[in-house]
Amino acid sequence: MARHRVLTGITTTGTPHLGNYVGAIRPAIASSQREDVDAYLFLADYHALIKSQDPALVAQSSREIAATWLALGLDHESAHFYRQSDIPEITELSWILTCNAAKGLMNRAHAYKASVQANEEAGEDPDHAITMGLFSYPILMAADILIFNANDVPVGRDQIQHVEMARDIAARFNHHYGETFVLPKAVVDDEVAVLQGLDGRKMSKSYGNTIPLFSTPKKLQKGINKIKTNLLEPGEPKDPDTSAVFQIWCAFANEAERQEMREAFEGGLAWGEAKKRLFERINDEIAPARDEYDRLMANPQEVEAVLQAGAERLRPQSAALLDKVRHAVGLRTFV
Amino acid sequence: MARHRVLTGITTTGTPHLGNYVGAIRPAIASSQREDVDAYLFLADYHALIKSQDPALVAQSSREIAATWLALGLDHESAHFYRQSDIPEITELSWILTCNAAKGLMNRAHAYKASVQANEEAGEDPDHAITMGLFSYPILMAADILIFNANDVPVGRDQIQHVEMARDIAARFNHHYGETFVLPKAVVDDEVAVLQGLDGRKMSKSYGNTIPLFSTPKKLQKGINKIKTNLLEPGEPKDPDTSAVFQIWCAFANEAERQEMREAFEGGLAWGEAKKRLFERINDEIAPARDEYDRLMANPQEVEAVLQAGAERLRPQSAALLDKVRHAVGLRTFV
Repeated sequence: MARHRVLTGITTTGTPHLGNYVGAIRPAIASSQREDVDAYLFLADYHALIKSQDPALVAQSSREIAATWLALGLDHESAHFYRQSDIPEITELSWILTCNAAKGLMNRAHAYKASVQANEEAGEDPDHAITMGLFSYPILMAADILIFNANDVPVGRDQIQHVEMARDIAARFNHHYGETFVLPKAVVDDEVAVLQGLDGRKMSKSYGNTIPLFSTPKKLQKGINKIKTNLLEPGEPKDPDTSAVFQIWCAFANEAERQEMREAFEGGLAWGEAKKRLFERINDEIAPARDEYDRLMANPQEVEAVLQAGAERLRPQSAALLDKVRHAVGLRTFV
Repeated sequence: MARHRVLTGITTTGTPHLGNYVGAIRPAIASSQREDVDAYLFLADYHALIKSQDPALVAQSSREIAATWLALGLDHESAHFYRQSDIPEITELSWILTCNAAKGLMNRAHAYKASVQANEEAGEDPDHAITMGLFSYPILMAADILIFNANDVPVGRDQIQHVEMARDIAARFNHHYGETFVLPKAVVDDEVAVLQGLDGRKMSKSYGNTIPLFSTPKKLQKGINKIKTNLLEPGEPKDPDTSAVFQIWCAFANEAERQEMREAFEGGLAWGEAKKRLFERINDEIAPARDEYDRLMANPQEVEAVLQAGAERLRPQSAALLDKVRHAVGLRTFV
């Protein structure tokens, strides 16, 4: 059976938090270990430039994310693990796709439209403070996917449209220039937990409601203690289904443990005790990886070597695909 | 005295015609021979993809344009002569600039606005058939210019805006990330003739009114014979100032010859004779180059070697600039 190529990018603009871990990192590493999967996992640092003009943050985030994935057991020998900006063929392909993507397609991108709407509501020019990076980013994403002929792209619901755009662009290219690209598809795993943050909304850097993954145990505990709860006293029954504490617990617990915690909530478990148990459960799961993370952060040359080896192993593949594309569009050497 | 870096790109979507020769090639080659100029001349094949989805045309045009410039005496040892797509740092820089260019800036580009207006007049959606290539092309052009820290970019009046956009993007980048780019400026040479075509409008591929530069003498003569004239008979005085024949003559003649032809027009020179003299004048100027052109077209490996040597000589420079840019924005290796 042919192995499915599954591609996942991680934008390097923040410090990994529990939401990233549960919603993206843990399932991606699990998927990369499947026999039928050929995993492509990359640090999307070109994408980071869309969101951040802070060079120190982008650089630091790249280091943290790379160390995080390796510490959590990503097997960089069997999976492809690389930094987007180490594959120059991606931007070259991106330009070629730019020439084959309709502007109207980009006009319809949700992320762009949301920014326009926010500007209009604020009484600003529709394109106020919108960069061409934000506007063009579905094309770069298409290049990320198509350069390695990925079959599946696991995404959240908000990203389905971008994968469909990549598919559209690829189909249009194939139609005009001849069969060149595999048509990718978005894969949405509804089983994957979307973690609630401190305030009960989705845990997300943009909401400022995150709990960092690899801080010290003490900081992890402090973070968990900040999760919003109601004012019910110890002994009073609590509704697990409206509690972020319970929701996060479920993302780390097995079925039996979930049931047990549900009953404890209904039996009047104190918030303090619930948070203590949650801390212990999370800490048990990540403590070994935290030590490895700290070791890797202290040895950046080791992480750098892994990424460079990853790029070196992949570039013959990206170069071959790009050669094919260049020939298709007429960028040909003379002999 | 520091030599000025002067950069000129030639889009590879057509066969060079007399208008290209007079308006672009001849002055660029002359400029490249100046002691105070460090010339960068390139085949803009990434730009060609914006205008043409015909791979054979793009490939053929690249060959013809390269052979044309070399045949006309471009000294590829002293000038930098290269193919845009052989410098991958250009698309990488283009993406980084994309993240630092306001979408509002692109909205105001003349070429884009003209397409929108044409769509609106035709009752179409404003962005009908407009690709992202057309919309983004000022950014690619900025990358072309900035990657080699060009000082001057000779352009026609219609292109001044694009060079100013490159300057804007560079200034914005320098301001935010620290001094990185030289600010380029557009140089408009009003001395350079804009050649009239067969119908008296500007000679341009898009008007279909061109005379090819290096066809056979017979075809050159046929082309010249097709230049539109009025119905005045031999012996009747003719107005040189409204005649494309006279205008083209001026682009090839010296001051004494111009005066002489003016008098001949006023003295009733027959159109047939005027065209014959024009053919001879042009043919005298280009015949030696035509032979060399034919030889180079028959020896593509020789042209390919020149272009590859050009890229090889330049890439340390583009790589060094890109390294500086990458570091500035936070795309840094970990050690």
